[in-house]
Amino acid sequence: MLHKDQLFPSDPRQRSIAQALYANVRNLPIVSPHGHTNPQWFAQNKPFENPAELFVTPDHYIYRMLYSQGVKLEDLGLRRLDGGSVETDPRQIWRRFAQHYYLFRGTPTRLWIDHAFETLFGLTERLSTSNADHHYDVISAALKSPAFAPRALFERFNIEVIATTEGPLDQLKWHAMMRDSGWKGRVITAYRPDSVVDPDFVGFRGNIKQLGELTGEDSESWSGYLAAHRKRRAYFKTFGATSSDHGHPTALTADLDNAAAQALFSRVLASNSTTQDKELFRAQMLTEMAAMSCDDGLVMQIHPGSMRNHNPSLFATFGRDTGHDIPTRTDYVSALKPLLDRFGNRNDLTIILFTLDETTYSRELAPLAGHYPALRLGPAWWFFDAPEAMMRFRELTTETAGFYNTVGFNDDTRAFPSIPARHDVARRVDCSYLARLVATHQLDETEAHELAHDLAYQLAKSAYKL
Amino acid sequence: MLHKDQLFPSDPRQRSIAQALYANVRNLPIVSPHGHTNPQWFAQNKPFENPAELFVTPDHYIYRMLYSQGVKLEDLGLRRLDGGSVETDPRQIWRRFAQHYYLFRGTPTRLWIDHAFETLFGLTERLSTSNADHHYDVISAALKSPAFAPRALFERFNIEVIATTEGPLDQLKWHAMMRDSGWKGRVITAYRPDSVVDPDFVGFRGNIKQLGELTGEDSESWSGYLAAHRKRRAYFKTFGATSSDHGHPTALTADLDNAAAQALFSRVLASNSTTQDKELFRAQMLTEMAAMSCDDGLVMQIHPGSMRNHNPSLFATFGRDTGHDIPTRTDYVSALKPLLDRFGNRNDLTIILFTLDETTYSRELAPLAGHYPALRLGPAWWFFDAPEAMMRFRELTTETAGFYNTVGFNDDTRAFPSIPARHDVARRVDCSYLARLVATHQLDETEAHELAHDLAYQLAKSAYKL
Amino acid sequence: MLHKDQLFPSDPRQRSIAQALYANVRNLPIVSPHGHTNPQWFAQNKPFENPAELFVTPDHYIYRMLYSQGVKLEDLGLRRLDGGSVETDPRQIWRRFAQHYYLFRGTPTRLWIDHAFETLFGLTERLSTSNADHHYDVISAALKSPAFAPRALFERFNIEVIATTEGPLDQLKWHAMMRDSGWKGRVITAYRPDSVVDPDFVGFRGNIKQLGELTGEDSESWSGYLAAHRKRRAYFKTFGATSSDHGHPTALTADLDNAAAQALFSRVLASNSTTQDKELFRAQMLTEMAAMSCDDGLVMQIHPGSMRNHNPSLFATFGRDTGHDIPTRTDYVSALKPLLDRFGNRNDLTIILFTLDETTYSRELAPLAGHYPALRLGPAWWFFDAPEAMMRFRELTTETAGFYNTVGFNDDTRAFPSIPARHDVARRVDCSYLARLVATHQLDETEAHELAHDLAYQLAKSAYKL
Repeated sequence: MLHKDQLFPSDPRQRSIAQALYANVRNLPIVSPHGHTNPQWFAQNKPFENPAELFVTPDHYIYRMLYSQGVKLEDLGLRRLDGGSVETDPRQIWRRFAQHYYLFRGTPTRLWIDHAFETLFGLTERLSTSNADHHYDVISAALKSPAFAPRALFERFNIEVIATTEGPLDQLKWHAMMRDSGWKGRVITAYRPDSVVDPDFVGFRGNIKQLGELTGEDSESWSGYLAAHRKRRAYFKTFGATSSDHGHPTALTADLDNAAAQALFSRVLASNSTTQDKELFRAQMLTEMAAMSCDDGLVMQIHPGSMRNHNPSLFATFGRDTGHDIPTRTDYVSALKPLLDRFGNRNDLTIILFTLDETTYSRELAPLAGHYPALRLGPAWWFFDAPEAMMRFRELTTETAGFYNTVGFNDDTRAFPSIPARHDVARRVDCSYLARLVATHQLDETEAHELAHDLAYQLAKSAYKL
Repeated sequence: MLHKDQLFPSDPRQRSIAQALYANVRNLPIVSPHGHTNPQWFAQNKPFENPAELFVTPDHYIYRMLYSQGVKLEDLGLRRLDGGSVETDPRQIWRRFAQHYYLFRGTPTRLWIDHAFETLFGLTERLSTSNADHHYDVISAALKSPAFAPRALFERFNIEVIATTEGPLDQLKWHAMMRDSGWKGRVITAYRPDSVVDPDFVGFRGNIKQLGELTGEDSESWSGYLAAHRKRRAYFKTFGATSSDHGHPTALTADLDNAAAQALFSRVLASNSTTQDKELFRAQMLTEMAAMSCDDGLVMQIHPGSMRNHNPSLFATFGRDTGHDIPTRTDYVSALKPLLDRFGNRNDLTIILFTLDETTYSRELAPLAGHYPALRLGPAWWFFDAPEAMMRFRELTTETAGFYNTVGFNDDTRAFPSIPARHDVARRVDCSYLARLVATHQLDETEAHELAHDLAYQLAKSAYKL
Repeated sequence: MLHKDQLFPSDPRQRSIAQALYANVRNLPIVSPHGHTNPQWFAQNKPFENPAELFVTPDHYIYRMLYSQGVKLEDLGLRRLDGGSVETDPRQIWRRFAQHYYLFRGTPTRLWIDHAFETLFGLTERLSTSNADHHYDVISAALKSPAFAPRALFERFNIEVIATTEGPLDQLKWHAMMRDSGWKGRVITAYRPDSVVDPDFVGFRGNIKQLGELTGEDSESWSGYLAAHRKRRAYFKTFGATSSDHGHPTALTADLDNAAAQALFSRVLASNSTTQDKELFRAQMLTEMAAMSCDDGLVMQIHPGSMRNHNPSLFATFGRDTGHDIPTRTDYVSALKPLLDRFGNRNDLTIILFTLDETTYSRELAPLAGHYPALRLGPAWWFFDAPEAMMRFRELTTETAGFYNTVGFNDDTRAFPSIPARHDVARRVDCSYLARLVATHQLDETEAHELAHDLAYQLAKSAYKL
């Protein structure tokens, strides 16, 4: 299923250049500065249980598509919050997945799954109803072997470093267990404070309280709350964190004076805060986090623009992260101004911007990143982590921001076996883009080789300080 | 003028794949589930009168372009509402069209017209001032022959089924005449209720009244009004309708409780309703129509985002549908939420979404259709029914929504002779897109053949229940 | 560095067509109807002082990119408003530029600079740290020769006509000096009234006063103010002006009655006008300018959508036009309606629309220009004056607006040596686009030759009445 020229332009001149560029970067180690793998896997190093648990249940790309065509999430084994009955037989889940696998034609999910099937399990026939059981059995058997335990896969994937994502209330016990185990794999954490900076987060007030208990700070006072963040960031740094991550509904920032911020914090802690208060608090916290980054050096990532839990019925039944978040129109130019007015001209701060609104690439993000020293552009993300969309990212940003205001690739995934495939797709697309520039005489081939290496490896290391 | 490889990629590898795919779909019957041909043509089967009446006067793509370059609509024979004098000589109209035909270079109109000239009339020289009369004479002569009567063309075009569009007040007499004639051509209607759901529609209150008279319902009460819709929908179904069509300024939906809906209906019937009331009423009616679709099975089409009649001077002189509607920025994510909250998770309802705002393809429409079972994506529409724009539709939606959340092609036209050309363009563009996926090793050629057939034929039949 | 096939498609069929098209247009004279070169250069014809002054200091594309990667503007010799010390050694500035030249890979700036280096100075090795001094010395030496004086370059560039841009308070003394000198080079002015129509412009009220002194009109009365504009426009016409230029934050227009306009003018002259008043005044002035254009024939250019001076710290230190303007989302459909309602149907008025928001190409601008006789589309502008973005302009507008509602190319630059390169890039991109249409059998090759000529030369002459 995997052709050696997959994703390369079919024009022979461009293809041969792309092949040459790719040959030099395909085996580079994977630097994965932003993702959502589970540190427990690497800490305990227990085998993955079955093919469904490995491929289907953790991947919202998969059950989102199946759901859109009438497959119930219960039948894919997703846990209901009310404990209602759901499919528990992994083989049945697998068969349903196989039966609908044709739906993924033309999608990146198909590229990732096929890549994992072929490179990990030697399965070279496309998944379908007729071979579902065969694939299931082959994968099941493999998973029992030590070569498929999480750490073995980590090494086989040639991962130089991978970041997981944890909240401030996390004690990082799995990271501690890894450290104590003496394993050499580099799995670092990242600071994702949603649970204590987003007043709409379930349990927000309790979380704030817990933050205080954890840090010994008076986290219900504004200054104590900020001090608690600083302590947790320092703690995360001891587990290798080099970045924080901020997934807000919008990119809004604010720069209130201390009294106003303090009053706002009191309001969001009380039960009577308005929608505006909550949005303003998230906005203020982005600026506060930037201020802390100026001190402690954590790279700041802003991932705005997702309307989370668009489907109230699914949310009530299955909870968050079950494939029904929808992108929204996003403004950066006005939204980021308060933060940029204060910190945008700093050379010692890095803020990486992501988007789910492609219209902002050329209109807002490339011009902003092509000017402010503190800004960099994150790669095509989530719905846009796909060949066409990754190509559009380059086409729409390079002419204004160049390559060096971008930061390489993020796989941003919890689907562990897809990681090599995702980086491979990114490398192939970037090599194809560079090949086009070479074939149209806009770039020398030697420059393209240097750039291919930077995009596949070096920029992520530098931007994330890895 | 028609090269056998028109619109195929010029890359030899992609071209040969596209040729093979196209060879298998080019002669498939036309399924035209959404359009605006005049049922009177097929009912009466009278010859088209002259080339201008066939090609120029009904086609707002044509006179829009000519008008933009200084040609007066009067000189193209468009009827003035005030009865003022306009050109009545079809040959003069034709000559003006021919004189400006170069303006259509690079537009789909040129592809459609050239296709019709060559395939229907054997005219292989591009229209120009110098051959205008020759073309006129050849077409005129042909139109007198029975082979060019509407039904004969319908059969020659290999139309399996075509939908016209009628309002609830239409008695469908032409459809009745067709049925009674024993002609086997399948021309069905579709339920387009603008005249009785849009308070801004000219004559809205009178229309509501007439709706009551037609149905024997108290259409000025909320429950009677809804019952009248149900009756008319049932009546339309007896003439083959499988769908309703909703062309609102925005995609706003609402889900008011019964008392609020009733009060709103009273306000829009009274003379003092506000702009907000009118918008809210249209919004509520989308949800009501979805509710009825759950009962009677009509597929629902939502075509939002056109600011109708942007040019008040032309509107005053010539009325609606005279080429001065302009697309506007359109939101779906928040706008559709009330409707989706209620019906989005149903597998027995199909809502087909269209857009005039391409930014929503990847940001909103593909993610929504890639999740909600009730949603499907309509094809590139109106200004976007053109090769580049159709390709963008695939590029921007497939990676998130796949192919099977789309519904094939709509020609959406009143320009009857352009129908084969429009479907041919769609088939060529889809085959080119698939060829690229094959040539870049993202899809097998056998899969591409299956998909080409689905996109050209099967998806429209299934989605529209034809 | 300049390959003869630069920017042409690498597909051999498309490439050979593009080559043929380009061969016929590459040497056409340059028509530059909109730009910002300094008339003083041509009036005095003094040699350019040094390479930094020629290439670096006037080009915000360059120092924007360098600044984004940590280079201080002081170190590039930009003048601080407070007179603070900045780099004064042009060779040091040049070295910094050379050291960071790799940042421009993939950007149009690189194409322009390389083109100028090679065609003007015979420098065929890419600029880098190691050859910085060599390049500096070669360029320095050349600049001392009469062949590199402004007028000599103008002639060498084969410029048929170029427009500069001046404000109403400008006495056009350099244009007068040129005229009096007997030099045959055609350098015309354009009327750019920001300083007296934008209440946010620094010194607005004083400017209005000065406008009165200059014209003998009571410029602080509404009727006198309008009369003063008419006089200055007439004066500009005596220096060849055929156009006015309007660079507003938005495309908003208004059509107030005389009393309301008069009252508004009083408010913006007083110190208490609101933000809304100021925006409304700019909006009203667009309509007033259109009215004047109907009388005096000046072509009107609207360049909306830039948030000027996004970075308050840089603005305070270095002032306007120092590379920190950021595009914003722009509406045209509603914004232009007041102006279009009044003048949109006129055949004797030309309004050229530009955008920094590419989403409007297909959604708003092509439909508007494809309908209203008064409207034309300006070329891809500023951040979008680059190969990919220029191609998108054609792809996104042609299918709806055709070619003949566009106006050829604008270089819009103050970077004099980049002008031939910019026109060359535009010609290459347009020929590539046409070649694709020919290779996919959408256009005849003879038509493509005619179009290539129109796009490179004729449309600019016609649209701008040159």
